[in-house]
Amino acid sequence: MTTSYPKIGGNGEANEGRVLLSQTTGFGKPAGYDPIAWQARCDLAAAYHLCNQMDLNEGICNHLTVMVPGTSDRFLCVPYGLLWDEVTASNLLMLDESGNVLEGEGEIDATAFFIHAAIHATGVVCVLHTHTPNVTALCCTEDFTLHMCHQNSLRFAGDVAYDPTFNGLVLDREEGDRLVKVMNGKRVLMHANHGVIICGDSVAEAFDDLYYLERAAEVQILAMSTGKALRIVPENVANQFLVDMKKDGGKANWAKLHFDALKRGLMRTHVGAKFCQ
Amino acid sequence: MTTSYPKIGGNGEANEGRVLLSQTTGFGKPAGYDPIAWQARCDLAAAYHLCNQMDLNEGICNHLTVMVPGTSDRFLCVPYGLLWDEVTASNLLMLDESGNVLEGEGEIDATAFFIHAAIHATGVVCVLHTHTPNVTALCCTEDFTLHMCHQNSLRFAGDVAYDPTFNGLVLDREEGDRLVKVMNGKRVLMHANHGVIICGDSVAEAFDDLYYLERAAEVQILAMSTGKALRIVPENVANQFLVDMKKDGGKANWAKLHFDALKRGLMRTHVGAKFCQ
Amino acid sequence: MTTSYPKIGGNGEANEGRVLLSQTTGFGKPAGYDPIAWQARCDLAAAYHLCNQMDLNEGICNHLTVMVPGTSDRFLCVPYGLLWDEVTASNLLMLDESGNVLEGEGEIDATAFFIHAAIHATGVVCVLHTHTPNVTALCCTEDFTLHMCHQNSLRFAGDVAYDPTFNGLVLDREEGDRLVKVMNGKRVLMHANHGVIICGDSVAEAFDDLYYLERAAEVQILAMSTGKALRIVPENVANQFLVDMKKDGGKANWAKLHFDALKRGLMRTHVGAKFCQ
Amino acid sequence: MTTSYPKIGGNGEANEGRVLLSQTTGFGKPAGYDPIAWQARCDLAAAYHLCNQMDLNEGICNHLTVMVPGTSDRFLCVPYGLLWDEVTASNLLMLDESGNVLEGEGEIDATAFFIHAAIHATGVVCVLHTHTPNVTALCCTEDFTLHMCHQNSLRFAGDVAYDPTFNGLVLDREEGDRLVKVMNGKRVLMHANHGVIICGDSVAEAFDDLYYLERAAEVQILAMSTGKALRIVPENVANQFLVDMKKDGGKANWAKLHFDALKRGLMRTHVGAKFCQ
Repeated sequence: MTTSYPKIGGNGEANEGRVLLSQTTGFGKPAGYDPIAWQARCDLAAAYHLCNQMDLNEGICNHLTVMVPGTSDRFLCVPYGLLWDEVTASNLLMLDESGNVLEGEGEIDATAFFIHAAIHATGVVCVLHTHTPNVTALCCTEDFTLHMCHQNSLRFAGDVAYDPTFNGLVLDREEGDRLVKVMNGKRVLMHANHGVIICGDSVAEAFDDLYYLERAAEVQILAMSTGKALRIVPENVANQFLVDMKKDGGKANWAKLHFDALKRGLMRTHVGAKFCQ
Repeated sequence: MTTSYPKIGGNGEANEGRVLLSQTTGFGKPAGYDPIAWQARCDLAAAYHLCNQMDLNEGICNHLTVMVPGTSDRFLCVPYGLLWDEVTASNLLMLDESGNVLEGEGEIDATAFFIHAAIHATGVVCVLHTHTPNVTALCCTEDFTLHMCHQNSLRFAGDVAYDPTFNGLVLDREEGDRLVKVMNGKRVLMHANHGVIICGDSVAEAFDDLYYLERAAEVQILAMSTGKALRIVPENVANQFLVDMKKDGGKANWAKLHFDALKRGLMRTHVGAKFCQ
Repeated sequence: MTTSYPKIGGNGEANEGRVLLSQTTGFGKPAGYDPIAWQARCDLAAAYHLCNQMDLNEGICNHLTVMVPGTSDRFLCVPYGLLWDEVTASNLLMLDESGNVLEGEGEIDATAFFIHAAIHATGVVCVLHTHTPNVTALCCTEDFTLHMCHQNSLRFAGDVAYDPTFNGLVLDREEGDRLVKVMNGKRVLMHANHGVIICGDSVAEAFDDLYYLERAAEVQILAMSTGKALRIVPENVANQFLVDMKKDGGKANWAKLHFDALKRGLMRTHVGAKFCQ
Repeated sequence: MTTSYPKIGGNGEANEGRVLLSQTTGFGKPAGYDPIAWQARCDLAAAYHLCNQMDLNEGICNHLTVMVPGTSDRFLCVPYGLLWDEVTASNLLMLDESGNVLEGEGEIDATAFFIHAAIHATGVVCVLHTHTPNVTALCCTEDFTLHMCHQNSLRFAGDVAYDPTFNGLVLDREEGDRLVKVMNGKRVLMHANHGVIICGDSVAEAFDDLYYLERAAEVQILAMSTGKALRIVPENVANQFLVDMKKDGGKANWAKLHFDALKRGLMRTHVGAKFCQ
């Protein structure tokens, strides 16, 4: 045994200079945009495209938002009516905390505004709300639990809030604030009869969670469909998993490498060439 | 809080002048076609292509029809034998209430004629009949119910008729009239051992319903496959959802924006370039 | 009501002169091939490509064969080792009843030979053997029944044989003959722990059955996965369905139109351009 | 009956000179690479691309590795952070038994190193570790058994080890060695709450098993989702199947022909053109 054993996930930044792990920043920023703000726009647009590519979206509903870097009261969102593969860095709306459109053309869907604005107001950087089939199906059962039956579920151990109260369309700030309260600082909210809300410190981290949460739910439902009992991971193993996940850059690093790779994938396709325009 | 809060779904017409929400009318109408009739042809052809793209069709069976604008006794339908991605605005058949082909070449499938003619005779603009897997599976169980377990199901609350009588191939007008009677003015008919019929005031509205009904059924079946009880939305919440859905342009507006976006999507693909020819 | 009501499915030949229902014969036959034999080669190659396109195949296993028109002891089959999208009209093997390769290069998989030769020896024109997931799953249960719960199932009412005896790889003619005996003239054999064998009077008819059988099984399994009882079509309705299916050219005509449409679809794609070479 | 009956699967080498069964070796080896080592690199890169194409991969996790031909202590692996369709013959890492990177740029994921190094140390040529949905779902139930209910399952009869102990992330050699011990020379390890590990004498054989194992698990879960009892193959038939599978070149030959065909498929696509660079 030597000390040269590789670290978990390596170092994202170090990796970026090698192999082909580049090409995930910049993206031809137009004049007049702050580079960091432009990067946030590109990342959010990429998340919309990736959801579309992976069937994680639904019609022109559901929303992905991110705070404008350097502000505490502005966030970016798709204008209502775009397909998710039509979203680009430059056609995203910038909104203030009252729903005024500061940049971009179009309007935000009211339900999106009330959910996302309330959560961003607590300081959350990125908020993804989707109706992916498997997670949503779990939200439509009385059981209503992401069971700790797979390594992917363990990523979320202790960090999922369950809201059993579905009040229909979210049409006022009060309902948004109620969701925040139920969420109580956890990074995932499973909302009965509705879908999921995921919070992250970056678009990359939130998207990575969205991807793995749907994978975890898919395996859980396939397993349950056999009619056999689920095999649950013992609590001490689940706890150790969380400790290990945080070591060495941990989940944030995994998510960055994953999201960078997916953005390179978009850049290689026709559709992908456009998310960063 | 200000009064500038965005409206649900915004205003379709206003939106169309902005961003890239254009390009969904016109489509190079050939000389000799009434513009409104041509638009109906384009919309219906688009619906055929979209069903094909989203796996909502089955072989060369099933049918989507729309009344010819300005008439009360003529409707458009695919000629029997075309794949749904072969349908174009100009190769659709125009039929009268007796099944005579007034425009186009080919013949209509008899089962299509007897179902669709009977429903159009009651003044319905658009009629979609499909065998999408999840809705159809619900029609093959004794339970035979779209349960109100998800927000998408609520779109259809109180507006689904169930016909437990399957009489085999629909080969006369009498069976078509029986279906109309069972449907009793509701916009969805789930037909035992068969599939679904959806009525709408426009192709856009009917297609939007087809999409969300299959999504609702998919989530319901996934949820039921866990073996756990479904979580049903309380009736007062379901009722409030319907009230909210009708506000502010409501579902018709949602559907128009959704369908416009999907048509733009078709225009961006090879296949899509052809539906409006 | 007039007598001008359209017929079921129309007349395939009459239709072929219209709209775009042409382009499904000929396909640039090379010199030296009998036109009818060449057409059979094109149809069989198309069936291989369509199965590949629709995920009805498995690895380089499973086989589709057709008798050489005008012979009673020769059939065409893929050479072992080709992906199904590599099959072309001209690289198919022609085999005699002893397994000698009369045309083409390569060898036939022995299991294919013993199954298909035995069935062709009884005069069957086309034999398709696949492991499509849903039909196969039914063959892996004790229930082992295609239930008459949907219109698509009714196409097969009374014409499915069930073989509960799985003897492993089919490595001699005796086992092939046993299958023929169990099949007893029915057009579908569901073979326990294995998959399905479909017989047809043409490639078109057999492929149409393969498509609808998998659709029927998919809906049945989705319905059963809800845990609710299946809704079974009354026997008199099922019987009437079979009578109606045979009228007016019936299933053979439906199948021809369906398969012609699918071949046109292949011709529009890159891969499709090659099946008829 | 004649002695000219075709053999099972024919002879891979003999076949390669015929039809279009060529083009699967060489792939433009750059100067400085040993031809056999280059071929191993191409095969492993192809396996990464094929998994990506067939949805057998998960994010940038999971790993496929192969020993460097002619060595007993060096293996090839993807550098952490690449999408599987970014892998090429030349960007694979070569690692020694201590995890030192001997060729290539980047780092190996630690969990990959500890699992794969421990297994390769026992002389296994190729090791595939994935979280494919259906096999993984079986690993998340108390039942935890690949049941012998289909011909595809029989390929694995008696050669699957089950490890009920999930200890979280594999972060030391001790855990890798424990897995080797549980595996006890079998070619498949199903690991509770985690996924599957497949060992093979070549990339082709291991990939072929990965493909058929997921197919077997898919059919088993579909069958179980009906709520009906599985139909289990009698033990004597299962045993005979294994005997037959080994005859005449057997599974190794089937796998070679299958993998060669899939590599030709990759060569025909844009993405495929790159795996062997």
